[in-house]
Amino acid sequence: MSVSFLHKYLDETRPGWAVAIARELDMVERTLETTICSDVPTAYDLSIGLLSAGGKRIRPALVVLSALASGEYDSQRMLGVAAAAELVHMASLVHDDVVDETRERRGARTANENWGNKISVLGGDYLLSKAFQLLVANGGPDVLRALSATAVRMTESEMLQASAEGDLALWEANYWRIIRDKTAHFLGACCECGAYIGGADPRTRDLLREYGVQLGLAFQITDDVLDIAGDPAVTGKATGSDLTQGKYTLPVLLALRNSGDAASLRAMLMSGKLTRDEAELVAAKVIECGAVDDARGVAVECVDKAREQLREVVASDYAQALDALAGFVIGREA
Amino acid sequence: MSVSFLHKYLDETRPGWAVAIARELDMVERTLETTICSDVPTAYDLSIGLLSAGGKRIRPALVVLSALASGEYDSQRMLGVAAAAELVHMASLVHDDVVDETRERRGARTANENWGNKISVLGGDYLLSKAFQLLVANGGPDVLRALSATAVRMTESEMLQASAEGDLALWEANYWRIIRDKTAHFLGACCECGAYIGGADPRTRDLLREYGVQLGLAFQITDDVLDIAGDPAVTGKATGSDLTQGKYTLPVLLALRNSGDAASLRAMLMSGKLTRDEAELVAAKVIECGAVDDARGVAVECVDKAREQLREVVASDYAQALDALAGFVIGREA
Repeated sequence: MSVSFLHKYLDETRPGWAVAIARELDMVERTLETTICSDVPTAYDLSIGLLSAGGKRIRPALVVLSALASGEYDSQRMLGVAAAAELVHMASLVHDDVVDETRERRGARTANENWGNKISVLGGDYLLSKAFQLLVANGGPDVLRALSATAVRMTESEMLQASAEGDLALWEANYWRIIRDKTAHFLGACCECGAYIGGADPRTRDLLREYGVQLGLAFQITDDVLDIAGDPAVTGKATGSDLTQGKYTLPVLLALRNSGDAASLRAMLMSGKLTRDEAELVAAKVIECGAVDDARGVAVECVDKAREQLREVVASDYAQALDALAGFVIGREA
Repeated sequence: MSVSFLHKYLDETRPGWAVAIARELDMVERTLETTICSDVPTAYDLSIGLLSAGGKRIRPALVVLSALASGEYDSQRMLGVAAAAELVHMASLVHDDVVDETRERRGARTANENWGNKISVLGGDYLLSKAFQLLVANGGPDVLRALSATAVRMTESEMLQASAEGDLALWEANYWRIIRDKTAHFLGACCECGAYIGGADPRTRDLLREYGVQLGLAFQITDDVLDIAGDPAVTGKATGSDLTQGKYTLPVLLALRNSGDAASLRAMLMSGKLTRDEAELVAAKVIECGAVDDARGVAVECVDKAREQLREVVASDYAQALDALAGFVIGREA
């Protein structure tokens, strides 16, 4: 099945927020396909495999929607930066999967499972170099500055997260920083870059960036909730995968405050990384004490804040799509 | 021992070519120290460990010497780009060491040995993000374009090299591309960027870039020779490490042409990755048939071509240092 056919198929199943930019998202896919071309078979095969595995393409969508919501724009710049954002995201997933020894993602085998760790580490670097080239060709100084600062925060928080593994106290102290720097600021930067490309005034740019940051927080909290309370058949991940990797996220941290059984829960988490059975037990306790609902509540608050930013942005189909995207992010099941 | 003290000590042992830019190389170290600062302990500790392990700092030296040999320059730009080049190099070494499971480099434990693969993969990404930020702040469009194109070639050739492991036919077909794209073009780009920063005319810029490319070829061939014929006590690497990793470099490829015993040598190499004992045996055969001398001869030819480029560059202490550096590159024992 050709990649283009796949994308046609994906079009038909696109969520509501993506309808207004269906054509642009198609062009982002084309840009991605063209960009990852290489006469080195492994480089191409690994990249096209990742591309055709699909994904929500939220980062490019944020660049595109923010640019279009801002008004004027240069189509080539917009598509180049949107595609670069997705490549950075893909590279970070590839390296994360090596690091976490993940074998499946979105129901498909990960790159490290298909190609081994060696090719995957280098494959991630290849994607980063292509993103760098796209950004240099299309970004301009403001976009480059925003994204390079974001890249530093992302990699720092990845290291913070890796060194916090299995250490409950470090997670309690750093959860918000980790999700802000790893996910939220990247989404904020995508909006900010779109705003630059769309020629937004500074106030609109700030609003769109803050929208992206709040959206990113809600997005990551929802990911963390789905790890505990999602349907493995839909998420494609076993329940409590984060727990077996020693990652203690918001639902768990809230349970430690709320649960009547907090002391025994804490004792379990302090004993180091959990087995799959222990993780399922902890997940059940976290759900039972209402902490998953509480975490979902926090995500809703973030989405409310995200939507609040949009009130001041000039009304348009694109601003409306951003509003819809905020709802999508917390409503999704995978 | 403080890092600053270490560098004072290193100053006194600097090779001749580095004397003309001793002050600038010191400032590059300061820039590196400042740049890798992070409040995430793992990110800082890993980076400072790599920095204090030292290195020849050839890439920053090429940026600095090419800028100074070109005339005018902006010191901050020059130092920023020089430091970024070293960070990219450091990141690629960290990822290479993960990929090749190397445990020692320059007589010290590698990052993956100290921190594990996980932190090292992310640590390499951290260094890349810092390099990206430095380049965006200091590079300017020409420098960014040159280095982003180089980054793509580097990562592609790393993947080509990884997929060629243990495959003699692929090495025979691709050796020159691998060393050109992995090493030579990066050194060429360092010179080109220095030339941009120094305001060189296009002709001088081409000459300096070609000087760097030829220097890079000589550098990599010398590395490959040292793997076969170097003194492990000086190189810090066991004889034939490349062979045990299934990398068949110029001395080996020349032996397959020159050796009276070529057929049996080929049969050994075709049998897959070699054990340490087999690698030592092959290394001895390669030396015996004169292929190491032949490879050294090829490196000398590259250095001659590198020096030839300099004839047209305006004479200065810095152009002279570039000439001396070319001799250093093939004369070194580690």
